[in-house]
Parts: sequence; structure tokens; C-alpha cells
Amino acid sequence: MKSFSILEINEVVKGILTGNTSHRITGAEQIKLARETHITFIGNKKFAPLWNASKAAAALIDETITIEPGENRAFIKVKNVDLAMALVLELFTPEPPVFDTNIHPTAVIHSTASIGNGCKIGAGTYIGAHVKINDNVIIYPNVTILDECTIGRNTIIWSGTVIRERCQVGAYCIFHPNVSIGGDGFGYRPGADGKSIVKIPHIGIVIIGNAVELGSGTCIDRGKFSATTIGDGTKIDNLVQIGHNCQIGRMCLIAGSCGIAGSVTLGDGVIMAGQAGIKDHVTIGNGVKIGGGAGVINDIPDGETVLGYPAVNYRETLKQWAVLKKLARNS
Amino acid sequence: MKSFSILEINEVVKGILTGNTSHRITGAEQIKLARETHITFIGNKKFAPLWNASKAAAALIDETITIEPGENRAFIKVKNVDLAMALVLELFTPEPPVFDTNIHPTAVIHSTASIGNGCKIGAGTYIGAHVKINDNVIIYPNVTILDECTIGRNTIIWSGTVIRERCQVGAYCIFHPNVSIGGDGFGYRPGADGKSIVKIPHIGIVIIGNAVELGSGTCIDRGKFSATTIGDGTKIDNLVQIGHNCQIGRMCLIAGSCGIAGSVTLGDGVIMAGQAGIKDHVTIGNGVKIGGGAGVINDIPDGETVLGYPAVNYRETLKQWAVLKKLARNS
Amino acid sequence: MKSFSILEINEVVKGILTGNTSHRITGAEQIKLARETHITFIGNKKFAPLWNASKAAAALIDETITIEPGENRAFIKVKNVDLAMALVLELFTPEPPVFDTNIHPTAVIHSTASIGNGCKIGAGTYIGAHVKINDNVIIYPNVTILDECTIGRNTIIWSGTVIRERCQVGAYCIFHPNVSIGGDGFGYRPGADGKSIVKIPHIGIVIIGNAVELGSGTCIDRGKFSATTIGDGTKIDNLVQIGHNCQIGRMCLIAGSCGIAGSVTLGDGVIMAGQAGIKDHVTIGNGVKIGGGAGVINDIPDGETVLGYPAVNYRETLKQWAVLKKLARNS
Repeated sequence: MKSFSILEINEVVKGILTGNTSHRITGAEQIKLARETHITFIGNKKFAPLWNASKAAAALIDETITIEPGENRAFIKVKNVDLAMALVLELFTPEPPVFDTNIHPTAVIHSTASIGNGCKIGAGTYIGAHVKINDNVIIYPNVTILDECTIGRNTIIWSGTVIRERCQVGAYCIFHPNVSIGGDGFGYRPGADGKSIVKIPHIGIVIIGNAVELGSGTCIDRGKFSATTIGDGTKIDNLVQIGHNCQIGRMCLIAGSCGIAGSVTLGDGVIMAGQAGIKDHVTIGNGVKIGGGAGVINDIPDGETVLGYPAVNYRETLKQWAVLKKLARNS
Repeated sequence: MKSFSILEINEVVKGILTGNTSHRITGAEQIKLARETHITFIGNKKFAPLWNASKAAAALIDETITIEPGENRAFIKVKNVDLAMALVLELFTPEPPVFDTNIHPTAVIHSTASIGNGCKIGAGTYIGAHVKINDNVIIYPNVTILDECTIGRNTIIWSGTVIRERCQVGAYCIFHPNVSIGGDGFGYRPGADGKSIVKIPHIGIVIIGNAVELGSGTCIDRGKFSATTIGDGTKIDNLVQIGHNCQIGRMCLIAGSCGIAGSVTLGDGVIMAGQAGIKDHVTIGNGVKIGGGAGVINDIPDGETVLGYPAVNYRETLKQWAVLKKLARNS
Repeated sequence: MKSFSILEINEVVKGILTGNTSHRITGAEQIKLARETHITFIGNKKFAPLWNASKAAAALIDETITIEPGENRAFIKVKNVDLAMALVLELFTPEPPVFDTNIHPTAVIHSTASIGNGCKIGAGTYIGAHVKINDNVIIYPNVTILDECTIGRNTIIWSGTVIRERCQVGAYCIFHPNVSIGGDGFGYRPGADGKSIVKIPHIGIVIIGNAVELGSGTCIDRGKFSATTIGDGTKIDNLVQIGHNCQIGRMCLIAGSCGIAGSVTLGDGVIMAGQAGIKDHVTIGNGVKIGGGAGVINDIPDGETVLGYPAVNYRETLKQWAVLKKLARNS
């Protein structure tokens, strides 16, 4: 188990120390669950009254909160408790699963694939023809990467993930378990006889930028032609569906169970809360915020915050909800 | 093919026999599809008129329904047809997939893992370092269980499931195909520069109680610290998303495509119908019922039934729907 | 890289050529992204003004649009641009991932399984006891097909897919990555003690017709008894949940993230837009259209188009939306 002195922790978070800093810390925990060797955090005045009853040996505390740590415990006062906590959690991060050998003997790597320096590839993983894996990529057991894909350096791919042929993944990405990349888009046309359904071939690919994170079970379909693209720094949660030929901007945050239909464009910095959906061919501007469960069926200009179904400016949706509530109460 | 006499079936369901009990039964089927060697069930008066046209040789029938089986067929009268049917289905359950050897030679089991007595482990499954599998666990092919996980006795894990490092699974659980346990939670903070996104390490785990069932494709994220927990006896359907640090109570039923954001607390015996969602940090009391597609954004007290988005008491939602319908009709 | 002359392309789409048809074409692309060796398409008058600025060497164009290709480029005039484009995309479809040997040596195939002529089976795939794989089936790496399943000829199964025991899959199907077939249905009953939950055994199967396509991550549960069935020609997108004992008709289109609860019946030719849901035991008629995000809780007669939650005829839902909008604006 890792342990650090409070001074060692403060070397990382660079705050101001008060109280008794002699304890050794073995982990981080929320204020009610923390034990005697834990550091906790107080980011908000409302949690300050819980400090006395907490067993924690130390707390990261917002510098504007005026309570004292008491005789035997310590505070580290910081500007931004959330950021400081992220640093502390990083300090305590346990070792990831071990690889006894860099490339497990049961991994199947096609003779034409190229594997960079420092890569680790787990048991049962398949790497297809002409795949290019750059340096320091970690691929856990039972992953499938089909022909001609490229994976950027330092990317981490967890078990069960499937990346179909010719897709391109950037550097420093993280794909959680059972992600599906590059399935055919959902495109059909009525046949000339008016009865049958004709499948539209999807000969495009998926291009994923750098530092993209994809949650467990998330699916991104390949383009009909050209590519479905995910911009640098975008983070996508679990069980999200992204249709063919979507263009997702940089630094977007897309929460769990969202669904984005085909050919949708998202600008940069878009935030979608959970279970929201976007109709095909819609364009969403930069910095747009989409509320949880919203159904977006029209284009949204830059910077707007929308809610409801059909999604409109959140103030209008809140008014609709209020009006309806009042009418029901009076009925 | 398994077959039982009607008397043998009644030894299990312990009902009252009437009619001709001499037939041999080879399976159970609904009343319209049943064939001559099937037993069917009549749990509700409205199905009684279908008995004459049914080919079934016998029926489990609610003891308060007063029809007769006729000359050549049998009834087993029972208090609770659904429970009796569950027992009959168990009787006819076919053998599960075979394991020619308990541990398939292509399974990769780390030298430091421990495997209990009577376990079966399928082809291509990976068991990581220091994993502890208790007695009589069945793991089908192509499962991945990463380092330091523990799996309780008699648990069944179907193919494609991934359990990330350090997670704890109880006894008598069933995980259906392609479940994902222990992916990182979806937690980010704006960087100090106001532009970048900082990933918050998720160093916690997932703790799953006893007799928990998880549907195909369901995802449960690990805690930021401490654990995401699922209580004993809770049943979760397919494609459900459960965010980091959720505390799900005992004996909850969560139907397909539900989404539960981070740090949500569910009491015991909560029922969520399909496609419902819960906002992060919300607390749901014991015995709460949440209607299909509901969007819960506020705490719900014990025993309440909610519906709609934003979800409120179902009577209020039904009134809102009625008022709106009337207004639209009159417009 | 494949390339074709414009004349060769026209042999497939059978349109009327105008302009300079001497260019060699290496791919298809949308009008704004097309490069000098691409063919593009103009299916709608509103895209005609983009032709001059486009770099494409040729376009498939609706025969009713009256613009000219200009001196150095070509048009292929066709009745139905979408269908013609599907044919062109097929022409340019790259080779699928390679199999160096038809059956990879690391695939595990039970001695009692039968594999047809011309089948390809990838690394790490497991084929259980008494499975019957018909001719020309392609199974990519890391698929799991458990005992007694049958797979029809020419079906393609992508990596990560799991098909549980005794399920039946037709011919010419395509299953995308990480599909889950045949998990137990979500069926429980309160125990006789009023406290416990009794699992209902699911001893039925899944029967999938011919030419069915299933998107990445989609889940179809097995029947409690008899079967969950999917009709010929039905296409299902990513992350769709289909509950136990559903009867899905022929030629249905079910878009991403839809959820269909247990024992739902869909007629033929039903179209569900994204994120729609259907309550258990509901019956949907032939040719019904269900809008995006709709929540269907009642039976729908043939041919109806429904929207909203609870879903009603779309005209009524649009009126409800309009009334509510007006009320909110005037409040």
C-alpha cells in the first residue's frame, strides 16, 4: 500500500499547511467514510461542520473556508480543492494490472503488423494485418484490432474493445471495456421494387483524435464515406451511441447513455448531460450545453443551453414545466 | 429431451390435481403455442376461454378460476401461478453449455491467481494476478477478470464480460454477456488554465453483493475513491449505465436502458422501469417506484411512485398529461 | 486502391452520361469534401450550387436537376441518386480483413460442432458443442458461440459478439461488434414470503431470420419459453435492447439506443427512430412509425405515426408542443 507524509502530499498540491502535519497518509476518502490514515477534502462551506466528526488525519480545504484543523490534524489550504484532489488521487493510484511479458504468448499479432517500443499486449488479443501500434501503447487481454488500424502512442485499450479495420486512433487515448469502433453505419434505402431494403455500404472509417476517452460499451460507427471524427480531448462516457459521419469537436463532454444519430456536427466544448439525444444531420455550435434527457431536433447556435424535447433554450423549457405544473394543480 | 409425468410436476408445485393426469409432459409453453405434450398456465380469468382451443395436455391454473380441464386433460390448481410456473420452468431447464475439462487449456490464469474447487473456466478466458475465484464459479469463454478481483462462490459469468482490477463480486451472482465492471468513472475538471480538461483518477473499486444479476452490456463504473456498491439481491437488466460511487440498495429491480449518473444513492427495493434516468448525487428512498422513461432530478422519499420528466408523483404527472391533451384537443 | 473509369461506373448504375467522361475515379465523397479523383452526388436541388466549387470529377445527379457538368467534368443522370450511390459505394468497398487460414489455429471449435464449406473463423473464437455453422459464414476473432446454436450460410459475425446456447441465426445476417444474443430475460417474481425475489428461468431461445443486421452492442434476450424472434430483413442499430419473448416482424428498422421491453409484438415494416421505447406486452401494427425518443405505452394500429410520451398520433403531439410553447410564452 502506498503512503505519503502530509508534506510530501503538499509538494504536489502546493497549498498552505496548518495544524499537525506529522501523520502518514495511506489514501483519500470522502469526509464521512475517511479513516485515521486518510486525507479528505472540504471544497464547500456546507461540509465544514462534518470535519469534527471525521476520522481523517488531514483535509484539502478551500482557502476561503475559515475553520481550523484542531490540535492533532492538518489542513492543506488550496485555491481549487477539486484540482488538488485530482492530484492527490493520482499520487495514490495503485499499480495497473501486471504484464509478466510485454507481449503475451497467446496474443495473435499478424506478421505484417508493427508494434512500437514499450508496448504491452495482453492474452488473447488479436492485432490484424498492417496494423500500426505506436510506442508505449497498452492493450489489455481479449481486445480485437482489425486490419490497417493505427493506434497512437501511449494509448490504453481495456479488454473486450473491438476496433474494426482501417480506423485511426490518436495518442494518449483511453478506451474502457467493450468499446466498439467502426461498425457499419445504420444506412438503408428502399429498394427499386418499393419493397426490399438495400444496405448502403459504409466504406469510410473512424478517426479519433488525441487524449480522447471512451466509456465502457460505447459505440462509434464508421462513415458511409470519409470518416466519423472525434476531436482531440473529447471525453465520452459509457453506452453512448455515435452514428456514422458525425463530426464531434474538440474537448466535448458527452455523458452516459447519450445517442447521436448520423451526420451530426458538434462544435468544440459541447457538453451533453446523460441520456440526451440528437437527431441526424443537426449542427450544434461551440460551447453548447444540452440538458439531461433532452431531445435535440434542430440546429443550436454557439453558447446556448438547451433542455427538454424538443430541446429549446432552458429558460423556455423551465417555463413550460412551470406552466404545466400550475395548470395540473388547478385542474 | 427432459420429460416428466404430471404427478412428478405436481410434486414440485404442490397444487391440487384434477382431470386426466396420465400424460407425459416435455415442456412448458404459453396457451396459444402449446403442443400436445406441453403444460401451459392460466393465471388470469381472461385466458380461461382459450383453454378449449389449446393443445396443451395440462395447465397450471389459479385456484380461484372455476373452469374444468375436460375429460382427457389435467389441471394443477395453485395459489400463485407465476411462482408455480417458475418452478416448472426450472424443472425443464436444459443442461447449460458443456465444459469438456474444468479449466480449458487455452484459458490464461496468472500463476498468483487462486481458483476454488469445482470451478469451470472456458476457452480464452483471462484471470489476472492475485485474483481469487471461490468454489463452483462458472466462467464461460472469452471473459476477462483483471488483477486482484474476488469472485464469490457459485457465481456464473457469461462470455465477453470484463471485470477490471480490484473489484469484488459476491456469491450466486449471474453476469450476462458483455458486462463491463470497473471502468473509470466519468470525472473531469477544467484545468487551472481554464482551457484544458483534467482527468480525475478513479482509484476506487466496485463491490457487488450476493445474488446480483447483471444484464447483457450493462456497465458499472468504479468509484473515484472507496467504491460503487450494488446491494444483495439486486437485479439489473441489459444496457444499464451505473456511474461511479453510486450506492445501490438491496433487492432493487432496474430495467433495461436505464441510466444512473454518478454518486446516486438508491434505497432497498427500488424499482426502475425501462429507460429511466437519475441525475448525479440524487437520493432515492426505499421502495420507490420510477416509471418508464422518467427523468429523476430531485431526491425522492421512501415509498413514492414517480413518473415524467422532471419526475414527480405519478398522479401529478398523469394530471399534467391529461391537461395538456385537453388543451391540445381544444386548440 | 481501387479505381474505375466513369464508363465502368455507369455500367453499374445505368444512368445517362453527359460531359467529359475521361477521368479515372478512385473513390466517392460528399460534394464539399470530394477531391479531384472522386465521384460525388447531387440528389437534391439545394446541393446544385455547390457543384462549381467542388473538386469532384463526376457526380451522380438526379435526372430532374437541370444544371450542366461544365467542360471538363461528368454527370451521370439517374432516377434515384441514393440507390445509385449505394451501388457506387459497393464498387469501391475495400477488401475486408484478411484470414491467412480459413480457421485460425487458436480458434477453439468443439469436436461435435460442424463447420460448413468456405467458412472463416478468426483467432480466439469459441464454437461450442453441437453448433452448426453453415457454408460461407465469416466469424471474426474473439467471438463466442455457445452450444447447439445454428448459424445460416453467408452470415458475418464481427468480433466480441456472444451468442448463447441453442439460439438460431438465419442466412446473410450481419452482427456488428459486441452484440449479445440469448441472455436470460429480465423476469422475477416476489417470493412466497413476500420479501425475496424469485428468478424465472428462461428456457426459451432467440430465433433470428435471414438478412437481419444487428448493430454494435445490441442485446436480444432469450424467451422465457418458446422464443424471442426477429423477422427476415429487419435491421437494428447500435445499443438497442430487445426483451424476452418479443416478436419483431419483417423488414423493420430500429434505430440506435431504442429499448423494447418483454413480450412486445412488432408488425412488419415498423420504423423506430432513435431512443424510442416500448412498454412490455404492447402490440405495434404493420408499417407503424415511431418518432425519436417516443415512449409507447399502448397498442398502435397499422400504419399510424406516433410521437411523444405517452406516444400518440404525431399530429396530436405536435399540437401539444405548440400549445405548451404558447402558454409558456404568454406566462
